Amino acid sequence: MRYELYYWPEIQGRGEYVRLALEEAGASYVDVARGRGGSEKMLALMEARRTPPFAPPFLKAGKLMIAQTANILLYLGEREGLAPANAAGALWTHQLQLTLADFIVEIHDTHHPIGSGLYYEDQKKEAKRRAADFIDNRAPKFLRYFERVLEANRGGFLVGRRVTYADLSLFQVIAGMRYAFPKAMKRLEGKHKRVVALHDRVASRPRILAYLESPRRIPFNQMGIFRHYKELDA
Amino acid sequence: MRYELYYWPEIQGRGEYVRLALEEAGASYVDVARGRGGSEKMLALMEARRTPPFAPPFLKAGKLMIAQTANILLYLGEREGLAPANAAGALWTHQLQLTLADFIVEIHDTHHPIGSGLYYEDQKKEAKRRAADFIDNRAPKFLRYFERVLEANRGGFLVGRRVTYADLSLFQVIAGMRYAFPKAMKRLEGKHKRVVALHDRVASRPRILAYLESPRRIPFNQMGIFRHYKELDA
Repeated sequence: MRYELYYWPEIQGRGEYVRLALEEAGASYVDVARGRGGSEKMLALMEARRTPPFAPPFLKAGKLMIAQTANILLYLGEREGLAPANAAGALWTHQLQLTLADFIVEIHDTHHPIGSGLYYEDQKKEAKRRAADFIDNRAPKFLRYFERVLEANRGGFLVGRRVTYADLSLFQVIAGMRYAFPKAMKRLEGKHKRVVALHDRVASRPRILAYLESPRRIPFNQMGIFRHYKELDA
Repeated sequence: MRYELYYWPEIQGRGEYVRLALEEAGASYVDVARGRGGSEKMLALMEARRTPPFAPPFLKAGKLMIAQTANILLYLGEREGLAPANAAGALWTHQLQLTLADFIVEIHDTHHPIGSGLYYEDQKKEAKRRAADFIDNRAPKFLRYFERVLEANRGGFLVGRRVTYADLSLFQVIAGMRYAFPKAMKRLEGKHKRVVALHDRVASRPRILAYLESPRRIPFNQMGIFRHYKELDA
């Protein structure tokens, strides 16, 4: 089966967590909205009567249409072997993913604390306050949590002895944090060596490495979740 | 088996979505942190080496310890018959729950747009801006989505012909929105009659009704996710 991924074509965004899972699995997929007429096809599908997505990303897998990033990964984790097969391990992997999802919302809201439909320039003052609180309090709290999970697991991965979609997502969050907050991350990385090592371990996996060097990987940019504004990176 | 729910004892918060599921299922459970010494027990469990939660709520079910509200509901949905048994229906129910979770974050952030660790009074000006954008743009978008899902399903519930945990959560969101934004909701309810009818349908289910009238239901208050500040309800 060939999966169809639907996501905004110009950004990594939340679609990237799905792309990384599909790439690591070596799955056959098409990134529909990046092809000709794909954006229109995506918008049309959002009007579906049955199981419509609230927002991209969503994945078509045969007759299934699945939205919400963590939900897509729950499905792919089971189907593509990117999560433990037992129920306890699958729930734990999903729990980590949902915690990463919370982290990602807070990262996004550093530059959009007032409204996602407003320009950054129209909420710059508020963004400065929110980003300062994020760097001082929230980012360390999330990073410390994942550092602790990695330490307890000892396997070099978040769950067990094999890579899961949660590892791929944590890789992406660290890569994004480095892009958005290079100064803050320089300070934070020293205290979170296991998290940094996980990032490197994922980045060097053959399929991920090939993906990152391919044109399929959209570069970080100033339209995505991770944005670099010097004034927010205190 | 008797479930153990761990959540902050003074508020409904995210624990409430789990309580509603346990109550509707008629499950045996104890709300640990509301008992003597329970908060200490909760904080101690958060330091667990194996599968620690990032934050409450979490549920102990035998040997399992499960955190993240939507993840707990995924588990209870299957185990307690609060979601379809087939994979497609379970994923769709979970997708709706994750969309409600996004809605809930945005509701919370109307009064805490800058930092969850700061007082409301220290972010009141920003809260006014965020709440205005929320009422004008975000709340209508979410409500319209759930109205559309209810309309397409025709069964009076979000999924199929039986109540799911997503219905219980949507009930709670509507109840909370009425508490937090009574003026705005008065305007919005007229355009979202199916959502309002779902709220009423859930509220009148025998076990939910009994729960709502019991001391187990913590009243809405100014410490939870849903807070009523007159100045935010424009």
